[in-house]
Order: sequence, then C-alpha cells, then structure tokens
Amino acid sequence: MTTVSAKRREPAPTPLEDISRQLGAELVNARPGQTVSRLAGLAEAEPGELSFLSNPSYQHLLTTTKAEAVIVAPGVNATGLTLLRVENPDLAFAKAAALILPPPPHPLPGIDPRAVVDPSARLGQDVSVGAGAVIEAGAVIADHCRIYPQAYVGVESEVGEGSVLYPRATLYHQVKLGKRCIIHAGAVIGADGFGYAWTGSEYFKIPQAGVVVLEDDVEIGANTCIDRARFGETRIGRGSKLDNLIQIAHNVRLGAFCAFAAQVGVAGSARIGNGVQIGGQTAVVGHITLGDRLTIVGQSGVTKSIPGAEAGVPEKDRVWIGTPAQPMREQLKEWQNLKGLARLRKKVREMAERLTGGEGNQT
Amino acid sequence: MTTVSAKRREPAPTPLEDISRQLGAELVNARPGQTVSRLAGLAEAEPGELSFLSNPSYQHLLTTTKAEAVIVAPGVNATGLTLLRVENPDLAFAKAAALILPPPPHPLPGIDPRAVVDPSARLGQDVSVGAGAVIEAGAVIADHCRIYPQAYVGVESEVGEGSVLYPRATLYHQVKLGKRCIIHAGAVIGADGFGYAWTGSEYFKIPQAGVVVLEDDVEIGANTCIDRARFGETRIGRGSKLDNLIQIAHNVRLGAFCAFAAQVGVAGSARIGNGVQIGGQTAVVGHITLGDRLTIVGQSGVTKSIPGAEAGVPEKDRVWIGTPAQPMREQLKEWQNLKGLARLRKKVREMAERLTGGEGNQT
Amino acid sequence: MTTVSAKRREPAPTPLEDISRQLGAELVNARPGQTVSRLAGLAEAEPGELSFLSNPSYQHLLTTTKAEAVIVAPGVNATGLTLLRVENPDLAFAKAAALILPPPPHPLPGIDPRAVVDPSARLGQDVSVGAGAVIEAGAVIADHCRIYPQAYVGVESEVGEGSVLYPRATLYHQVKLGKRCIIHAGAVIGADGFGYAWTGSEYFKIPQAGVVVLEDDVEIGANTCIDRARFGETRIGRGSKLDNLIQIAHNVRLGAFCAFAAQVGVAGSARIGNGVQIGGQTAVVGHITLGDRLTIVGQSGVTKSIPGAEAGVPEKDRVWIGTPAQPMREQLKEWQNLKGLARLRKKVREMAERLTGGEGNQT
Repeated sequence: MTTVSAKRREPAPTPLEDISRQLGAELVNARPGQTVSRLAGLAEAEPGELSFLSNPSYQHLLTTTKAEAVIVAPGVNATGLTLLRVENPDLAFAKAAALILPPPPHPLPGIDPRAVVDPSARLGQDVSVGAGAVIEAGAVIADHCRIYPQAYVGVESEVGEGSVLYPRATLYHQVKLGKRCIIHAGAVIGADGFGYAWTGSEYFKIPQAGVVVLEDDVEIGANTCIDRARFGETRIGRGSKLDNLIQIAHNVRLGAFCAFAAQVGVAGSARIGNGVQIGGQTAVVGHITLGDRLTIVGQSGVTKSIPGAEAGVPEKDRVWIGTPAQPMREQLKEWQNLKGLARLRKKVREMAERLTGGEGNQT
Repeated sequence: MTTVSAKRREPAPTPLEDISRQLGAELVNARPGQTVSRLAGLAEAEPGELSFLSNPSYQHLLTTTKAEAVIVAPGVNATGLTLLRVENPDLAFAKAAALILPPPPHPLPGIDPRAVVDPSARLGQDVSVGAGAVIEAGAVIADHCRIYPQAYVGVESEVGEGSVLYPRATLYHQVKLGKRCIIHAGAVIGADGFGYAWTGSEYFKIPQAGVVVLEDDVEIGANTCIDRARFGETRIGRGSKLDNLIQIAHNVRLGAFCAFAAQVGVAGSARIGNGVQIGGQTAVVGHITLGDRLTIVGQSGVTKSIPGAEAGVPEKDRVWIGTPAQPMREQLKEWQNLKGLARLRKKVREMAERLTGGEGNQT
Repeated sequence: MTTVSAKRREPAPTPLEDISRQLGAELVNARPGQTVSRLAGLAEAEPGELSFLSNPSYQHLLTTTKAEAVIVAPGVNATGLTLLRVENPDLAFAKAAALILPPPPHPLPGIDPRAVVDPSARLGQDVSVGAGAVIEAGAVIADHCRIYPQAYVGVESEVGEGSVLYPRATLYHQVKLGKRCIIHAGAVIGADGFGYAWTGSEYFKIPQAGVVVLEDDVEIGANTCIDRARFGETRIGRGSKLDNLIQIAHNVRLGAFCAFAAQVGVAGSARIGNGVQIGGQTAVVGHITLGDRLTIVGQSGVTKSIPGAEAGVPEKDRVWIGTPAQPMREQLKEWQNLKGLARLRKKVREMAERLTGGEGNQT
C-alpha cells in the first residue's frame, strides 16, 4: 500500500555565507565555514543558533547573547559577534528561517488509495491527496497542490496552483482558490450565508447561491469560516491573511493585503479596502465600507463606514478603537475624561458648598 | 465503484408567469414567455435577472436598473419595467430564489461503500451517506437525510427526517435532531459541558451525562458548538437559527425562532425565550433568563435576566445593548453624556475661575 | 470486519452504601439496600435520583424535593430525607456522578481496518483507533488511548497515556500531549502561528517551526485552536482546562490549573501564571505576563501585565474586568460615576444659573 505520509527532516547546518548571500547581507566577523542550524530569540539563543535584533531597545542583549550569529540593522556593531547587516532585520530573519528550517512535512506527491476522488475531478501534476480526503465531482486541483488527509473539496470547486489544504479544511461547492493559498485545519469556506425571511410564523431560508473567491496568496487560519454569497461572491483579496476562528459573512469583500487577527467577525456585505489591519475579536457591522490602510484595534466594534488612505486620511488618523469605534485620539481623551470624573465630582461638590453653604453633598 | 457525489445543475430559464403564480404576485408589464434565470441586486442586475425592491429609499434605482423583472411592494410603479407586486418583497424574493436557483449539490441517495455504518444503526428510505462518514452503533438516520462525506453521527444519536449534515458535522452520542435540521461543516453538537470541581489540588471533571436536543427546522452554522447537558438536556427550540462559531454551553435552553449571529456565546443553564435575536459576538452569562422577542445588539454582554414580550414589555423597550447590557435608550443617553464630558469639564473650570479667581485650572 | 464502535451502557442502580463509602460520607436516614441510578438538580429530581445542596440559599428545596437522596454539607438536616454529609458537596456530587453514570461510549480497543496508520507510527497497549482516523509517520500513541474516528495525529506527534481524541481532533506535526489529555472534536493543535514580515509590497510568511506541548491532564474544548510556536514551544500547563472556540496564539505559555471559558483569545507570547481563571470572550494582548490566581471577568480586554498571588497580591485585588481591564473595584466605581453623570450635569447647570443668571443651560 502506498503511503503518502512524509517524514520530517531534521534541520541541517547551513553556512552563514550562503545565508548572507541570499539575504544580500553584509557579513561581519564570520569564521570560514561557520554554520547555523536553528533560530532563537537573542535571550534564549545558544551556539549554533541564528538570532536577530529588530527593536533597538534590546540592543544591550548583544553583549550577553550566546547566539552563533545575529541579523542586525545597518550600523549596528558588537565586538566579536558574527553579524549579518541588512536593511530589514525582521524580514531577513523570516527569510533566513525559510532557508534553514525544514518545511512542514506535507504529504508526498501522489493520490493515496484511501482518498476519494470523483472520476470527473481534474488533478494537475505533482499533486498530493491524502488518505480520507474527498474531491467531489467537477473539482479542479491545480499543479503542485498538497491536499492533506481528510480535507474536503466540494463539487466544482477549484484549488489554484501550489495551494495547501491542511486536514479537514473544507471547501463547499463552487469555491475558487487562487495560487499558493494555504487553508488551515478546520477552516470552512463556502457554507451558507446567514439569511432568512420571516413569513409571519417562521423563518424561510434565503437561498445562498453565490460563491467564494480567494485570490492568490491568501492564508486562512484554523476553524475560520468564510460564507458563500447570497448571490455574486464573497471575495478575499490577494495576499490577505486571516488568523484562526474568524467569521467572514456572505458578500463581504476584502481588498489586497489585509491582515485580521483571531476571532474577528465581519458581517454581511461589508466592503473592506486594501491593507486593512484588524486586531483580535473586533466586530465590523454589515453593509459598511472601510477604506484603505486603516488599523482597527482589537475588541473594537466598527459601526459605520470609515474613510482611509484612498481618501487622503493621514496615517495618524487611520487608527480606530472602541465600541462604537472612534479615532484613537478621541477614545484616549474619553478614557482620560472618565478617569477624571471622580475629581470632577469632588470639584463640583466643593464649589456647591462655597455657593450654598453645604447643600451640594449629594452630588 | 459507486459514487454518491452529485453534479451541480445550471440555473434554467424560468417563466415569470410560473414565478408570479407561485408567489401569488400581480404581474405587470410582462411579455409573453418572458423568463429569468438568475437573481441580483437592483444596481448589479442584468437582463435575464430577477431583482427586488424592499427598502423604499432605493426606489430611484428602478429608473436605471437593467433587471429583467423586479419584485416590488403593492402600489409601486415603474414605466416599462416588468414588475411582480407582492405584500412582502423580501420573502417573495427568497421564495423566487428557491424556485429559480438549483439547490446545493447534496450527495445522491445511497450509502457510499467508503462510508462506515455500524450494523446496528438504522437508516430510513432515500438516505445518502457520503464517503468517510461514520454512523455509530444504535444511531438512527430518518428518511430523506443527506449525510455528507466525513460527517460523524455518534452512538445512539438520531437525525430527523429530511435533515442535512454537511462535511465534518459532528454529533457526539445521544444527540437528537428534529426534522429538516441543517448542520453546517465543522459544527460540534454534544461535546462535554465545561464543568470541574476543585479538589484542593486539581480539577475533577464533572461528568456531562445529559444530551442535546435540536427541535424541527433548526439550522446550525459552521464550526458552532452546542455542549451536552450535565444532566437533563441542552435544547434548541423549533425553527431557531444559529450562525457560525457560536458557543452554546451545557443546559442552555433556547425557545422557538431565535436567531443568533456569528460568535455569540451563551453560558451554562441560561434560558432564552422565543423569538430572541442576538447580534454577533454578544455574550450571555449563565443561569439567567431572557424573555420573549428581545433584541440584543451585537458585542453586548448580558449579565442579568431581562423580561420580554411575555411580561408585556413593549417592543421599543425590548432592545438591549452594551456591557453590561442596558436598554438601548439608557445606553444612548450614557454615550451622549460621555461625549459631553469635555464640555462639562470646561464649564466647571470656568465656574471655578469665577468663584475663586483662577485656582480651578487643575480640574 | 471488526467494528470498534462501542454501545452505550444504561445507568445501573447503585447502592447508596457503596457511594457513601467511596465518598467518605456520613450516610443518614438510608434504608437497607437503597439505590440511585440517575442524578438531577433538587427541583427536578425524582425518586431513584441523587441530588445535592451546595448553595445554602436553596436549602428550602430540601422540604419539597422528591430526590431519593441528597448530598449535603456537614450539619445540614432534613427530616425523613436520605442524606450523604460531606465536606465538599460540589466535589462529592461530581464524584458520585462518575460512580453512577456510564462513561462516554469510547471506541473499543483495537485498530479499525479503515483507520490509516503509518507503518512507522508506534502504538501502545489497549489503544483504540477508529475508522477514518489518520496516524502519520513517526507518531506515538501511548497505552490506553482512545482515538475516535476521523481524528488526525500529524507526523512525529505524541499522545500520552490514557488520552482521548474525539472525532476530528487534529494534531499537526510534532505536537506533544501529556497523559490523560482530552481533546474534543474539531480542536486544532499546532497550526501555524500568525506571523508575517512586510516586504514593502507583500507579506512574507514567517516560518512557524516550533511545537505545542500540552502537559498532563489538560482538556481542550471543541473547535479550540492552539497554534505552534514560531520557534520554541507553545505550552499549556498541567491540569489546565480550555473550553470551546478558544484561540491560543503562538508562543503563549499557560501555567498549571488555568481554566478559560469559551471564546477567550490570547495573543502571541503572552505568559499566564498558575490557576488563572478567565471568563468567556475575554482577550489578552500579546507579550504580557499575568500572575498567579488572577480572575479576569468575561468579555474583558487585558492590555498590560498584571501581578498576581506570586507577588503577594491579595485575593480581593486579583479580580480584573473591563476593556482595558482594571481592578474590579475601580471599574465598579467608574460605572457608578457614569451612572451619576446625568445628575452631575444637572447640578452644574443649576450652579451656573446661580452664578450667572441663566447662561449655563447649554451644558
């Protein structure tokens, strides 16, 4: 019996010269043949591990770290320490990780005999489909996709080139994924939108006949739900990233390069621009429009449309917070006023006493 | 090998006369043999598409829409446009969608050979059980049910006539579903309630020996969780609809025709009346009672029992909001007061200056 | 074909003398051979059912209950009623439930032929693996584990002795579970943490190369997500209990005996002490530290580090609430001030009138 299960590779020592060249870094104080095989934070790093310094307030750790080498910004020095100087240490460290660390143990190419693939489904080259995965009629799996065991691809759904569906990722029918999408375990794409018409005595279910489209390079977190449109489409723009346990209702449209933290909820037909960042547990009501490059702080409740960069709103005014959400500066002032309330009451009481000779003490 | 996978039908042109007759509509300006085959909003609709006008503030769109025909309320006119006049355009449009659009591609009747059905389970007529679905010992699947691939029906659970379990819908043991229930992908019905007794040194797990009952016509959204009772039952009343990612804790009881939006959480033993509507991300604490036909706005936190229509509370006083939740009118007043705080402080400072000659400026 | 499906046992009558002996209870007014076979609350209990009284405010129910016997605290009397007196009625009732009620119908020992077990996986004694479950290469399932149908154990993951994975519980690769862990349906352990570096034109995915460790006796609710670390580990301490639909981000560390209610979210790298209790829908921001034995009320937003019992903070000051969270007493005062705002405004208006002769009425 064929097994498509992949073994996990151990990380292998990687020469710093190779890493430096690929990052376009300036390599300082390196010994010939010096290698790293793991990554760690500055405080925890051991010999053989690569670390990085991004936030200057941690610069003092350079004198005590045991890291084999550290990725730093231009101009940073540290006597005796092997450094890789780059413009963007955060990004360079992420890229170094991708070079050094083994990738996730995706299933090997091939169709497991215990997978269930409808004869009318079309599969590309170099595709893996794990045991117990189900690919329904008319579905299309493009080249280089990794479909883990137990994933589900509904009738006439399409998975773009190089995409990964983790175990139990579920696409209902006629869902369309772009290239290089990653769908984590338990995510549900294309369930019915939540819509009913009241007949006077019960709810009549409104057919949800639209689709869901995920553009290229979208990543969807574990157990996140994206509902299909009532008609038309629910769409997640190119390169957008959604964390776990997020709710995207029917007919919502997200622009490119949005990033939403876990447990965010977006109600039906909301339109969200490009580059919008939303903190965890925030809710966005339906039928509103959020502009480009807004930042909504976590646990906020956005109740009305907000213009963004596309309307010329400067960055400092594009941060919103609270329920109902308001510009950060207004919310901070409000909190300050609240904190000052006790003092204000005391003041008023004192004034009332001066005015009336003491009758104000019930305020 | 049998496949139970269903192909999706294309929408077919449907005569407006047929639709009109089934809706009981007044058909105006129709050409003989005129048909529609899709649905769309007024602004997006194309020839061949049916649309609707519900909110009078969009009436101006009737002059520009390209829709083939529009469902409208009695008395609405639009020169040259084909109209279907009905009492409730929202409901009629939903019904028209159900007439025109193909249903979801449910698995065809039959038991897929790769399904796992315990010999002691009882299956009715015209049942489909998809590949990889598991039906445990003593379970009962009534007539006309559609059990998608990878769904799970636990020991002695019962699924009522005409119900649909989407992929990975999961019923633990002894869960009972009424007729025509719809359980979306990833929903978990009957997991243990969250209960422990502290021994002084660790948590002792309190057995959760009760059940979950869903009455007829209940729909449960993707990845929603409904816990089994400690003892007795957790119950969702007839015709109630729960959106995605909702938490219903052990021993909660919902009345008939409730509708909860995504990410709502209801804590243990709460009792909720009939016709209660709750907005997304709202929390309801345990052991309280919510009356009939209340509306709780999204992201609220309900911390105490609230009487409803059953106690004669009029509709205008049945809307609650905020954390802790309070009647809408009180919350609005509170927000207004907050917004006026800065002005109030300024006023007090000015008064203090008059009183004292300037010493008040620290307020 | 072997079936691993277990039938559910009916509860059997259990002698009160046996129960009393195992609980170390003082048995009062028992008839010889008296038995109970079910459990219920005082108000609902019928003959043959065991109940309990924990909260003294329900003591009046002792005069009307139809329960066969009641577990009570020392010193409680009730003429004619069979009583079991114990120090901790809550705990004793939970233990009695475990004695009387049948356990969940876990799959019988054995590997279902329709399970998918990689040849390199190692399985202990008395292990059950249900139909459709997938155990990947190098995984380890210790003795006495119950792996339900459709569960997934990733490459090189380890499941400790006596653990239970319910249907569709999903462990990514290299996840490590201690002994006696319970993972409910749909929970996802070890998905990628949410981390990207912005290149200037798109998000670069930061490899999430760490692991997740659950210590002994951890229980994870349905559809809860615990992300793997960026590097190092995400860790849930011994005996901690997480309810449904919770988000634990990468590199979070929980101490022992924490209990989080449903829909809580904890952002990346937060460190949480021992014995911390968090109410439903609360959010904890990343990179902060919560001390021991704190209680965070539901729907709060914790935005900064909070010291706890380890720092000598007394119990009454360890309850936090609100967004941003503050000590309970401060929040209560703030709410009180808010409620008094209308009165304060009125007062100020009156004072202004006295001072100025009426010009204050715009406040």
